[in-house]
Amino acid sequence: MSTQKTFTLAVVGGDGIGPEVTAEALKVLDAVSAVHGVTFDRTEYDLGAKRWHATGETLPDAELAEIRQHDAILLGAVGDPTVPSGVLERGLLLKLRFALDHYVNLRPSKIYPSVGSPLAAPGEVDFVVVREGTEGPYVGNGGALRVGTPAEIATEVSVNTAYGVERVVRDAFARAQARPRKKLTLVHKNNVLVHAGHLWKRTVDAVATEFPDIAVDYLHVDAATIFLVTDPARFDVIVTDNLFGDILTDLAAAISGGIGLAASGNINPDKTAPSMFEPVHGSAPDIAGQQKADPTAAILSAALLCDHLGLTEAAAAIEAAVTADIEERTAGGARTTSEIGDAIAKRAAG
Amino acid sequence: MSTQKTFTLAVVGGDGIGPEVTAEALKVLDAVSAVHGVTFDRTEYDLGAKRWHATGETLPDAELAEIRQHDAILLGAVGDPTVPSGVLERGLLLKLRFALDHYVNLRPSKIYPSVGSPLAAPGEVDFVVVREGTEGPYVGNGGALRVGTPAEIATEVSVNTAYGVERVVRDAFARAQARPRKKLTLVHKNNVLVHAGHLWKRTVDAVATEFPDIAVDYLHVDAATIFLVTDPARFDVIVTDNLFGDILTDLAAAISGGIGLAASGNINPDKTAPSMFEPVHGSAPDIAGQQKADPTAAILSAALLCDHLGLTEAAAAIEAAVTADIEERTAGGARTTSEIGDAIAKRAAG
Ligand SMILES: CC(C)[C@H](C(=O)O)[C@@H](O)C(=O)O
Ligand SMILES: CC(C)[C@H](C(=O)O)[C@@H](O)C(=O)O
Repeated sequence: MSTQKTFTLAVVGGDGIGPEVTAEALKVLDAVSAVHGVTFDRTEYDLGAKRWHATGETLPDAELAEIRQHDAILLGAVGDPTVPSGVLERGLLLKLRFALDHYVNLRPSKIYPSVGSPLAAPGEVDFVVVREGTEGPYVGNGGALRVGTPAEIATEVSVNTAYGVERVVRDAFARAQARPRKKLTLVHKNNVLVHAGHLWKRTVDAVATEFPDIAVDYLHVDAATIFLVTDPARFDVIVTDNLFGDILTDLAAAISGGIGLAASGNINPDKTAPSMFEPVHGSAPDIAGQQKADPTAAILSAALLCDHLGLTEAAAAIEAAVTADIEERTAGGARTTSEIGDAIAKRAAG
Repeated sequence: MSTQKTFTLAVVGGDGIGPEVTAEALKVLDAVSAVHGVTFDRTEYDLGAKRWHATGETLPDAELAEIRQHDAILLGAVGDPTVPSGVLERGLLLKLRFALDHYVNLRPSKIYPSVGSPLAAPGEVDFVVVREGTEGPYVGNGGALRVGTPAEIATEVSVNTAYGVERVVRDAFARAQARPRKKLTLVHKNNVLVHAGHLWKRTVDAVATEFPDIAVDYLHVDAATIFLVTDPARFDVIVTDNLFGDILTDLAAAISGGIGLAASGNINPDKTAPSMFEPVHGSAPDIAGQQKADPTAAILSAALLCDHLGLTEAAAAIEAAVTADIEERTAGGARTTSEIGDAIAKRAAG
């Protein structure tokens, strides 16, 4: 456990089901904080669709500067059909990830036996995707000419640097090292995206020499989707670029009990800025405000937050509570968002 | 049936299992040609890894010009571990697709009840992906600076034009129109790749007004992977860009009986150049030359070839033969590549 007793959290509930699931994650954090002798001092930031409609702002610099002063960020979800696609995603979510240098987007996948999987025989699935978070096709480096005319041309530029690739690859190797299976799979598409793909491949090959006990593997992204369906148990640590990581982690969630369980951490391993924790799922506006959303992914994201802050016991307590809660699900009927949060909070504190 | 009686085929077996599976596709084409009163005059082109090792050539202009004179192209697979990744893919396969303006990369997916699916309850799955084939991140428009140094930067540029997007979107709508369910799903990532994504979205919305009976839907690529696992039966026609199409069609193959059954056509709908038919699978060098590859995807690609040439009865005969063969698979033991080809050829002719 860390020696610091009070942690400051910036909370961005965001859009759709974001605020609902975030409330449950905070409930669980409160439950464990009492037991583990820590306090989470939180400040809520009103950012997202409502704010944009009211003021036209997505993330003003002053608020970004304030958020930067916290120990960690808890985020719900961003995106709303009433806002042009991309405005909130680029102006808020990706702005946070890029500004705070969240270069490791950590997304664990595991199949809880009691939840099962849509796959017939998935095997023992427990892997983590280390998705690069600050480069690739997400840099916003593109544009369009003659928009709306038959001569329109639109480009998107994927930018990849040795600096950016090496640091995330190194982090992925270190994670593989700390896991029992000690395996790392690079996923890219280096037979087509030859410049970026070769940079990734060369970097993995170079860093691999420093980790001789890690088994290293390469898959094209298309082939990786096949193995995620036919043999997900083969994966341990996957390292991949920002866009491939986005795609693979939704697929990983789908094969391992659904997006309702998929947690993530946007991590700045150098701790030069706070890391941010959020469920992988989106804002799901169709079920927002109805207490229908499963807050488990947000709660598991809070466990990743504890882990990142050095509160390993609190993290373990939350994970154990979630596992126990999931095991009971098959028995009980449908529960509301806050009933699930209550149940997990009670167990996590107990 | 077309009035032309002799069709010229350029045959590129390529690498790994490519030549083996192509041989079976040709066997089946011969079987149906006799029955349907047509002849396939073929010319084999020795292209791929062996040729590259011997001469350094991937696809010389003179051979491309010759290939261009044919009615259609049958291709096996391209890519070999002894050749730097990208050399054959870009220099041969993608060169053919781009030079011959194969802007519709057609990839049907269907679950044969007797084959089943790794998914628990896939439903009735029968959809087709219309993957754009001449633009997007596949254009080869990128580069690298200071390669091999800590200051390396590598870019990949996705290029999208109104011209290129509209023609493939129009083709996809026409296909949806000809299918019973009349549904079209655009897959992109317009909340992040805003320039390209909005061009695609605006184009689909515009063309949709001309097809009022088609139900139109949009999914982000990450969400699309989820639905392909949890509810693949919801799809009818998917239209998407070159890279997303690459990823989604391997996933589609995985959920619908495997890559051994996934066929594709690289189609030039304007017929300004020959279209090219190939299995979706790769060259699988690990099992090459061992008669272990399933030639069914190549054979189904030959059925798409017949269809494209207007030989609809021959196409139907091949598809029926494949369906019958697949139904018997559960009973029999393992068969060699050519045993499967023989069995399908016999049925297709019968
Ligand atoms: C909302 C969107 C911008 C985001 C992404 O693409 O990264 C989401 O899909 C995710 O995976 O966190
Ligand atoms: C071999 C490779 C270049 C090719 C592609 O990416 O298009 C293959 O994966 C495919 O789907 O046909």
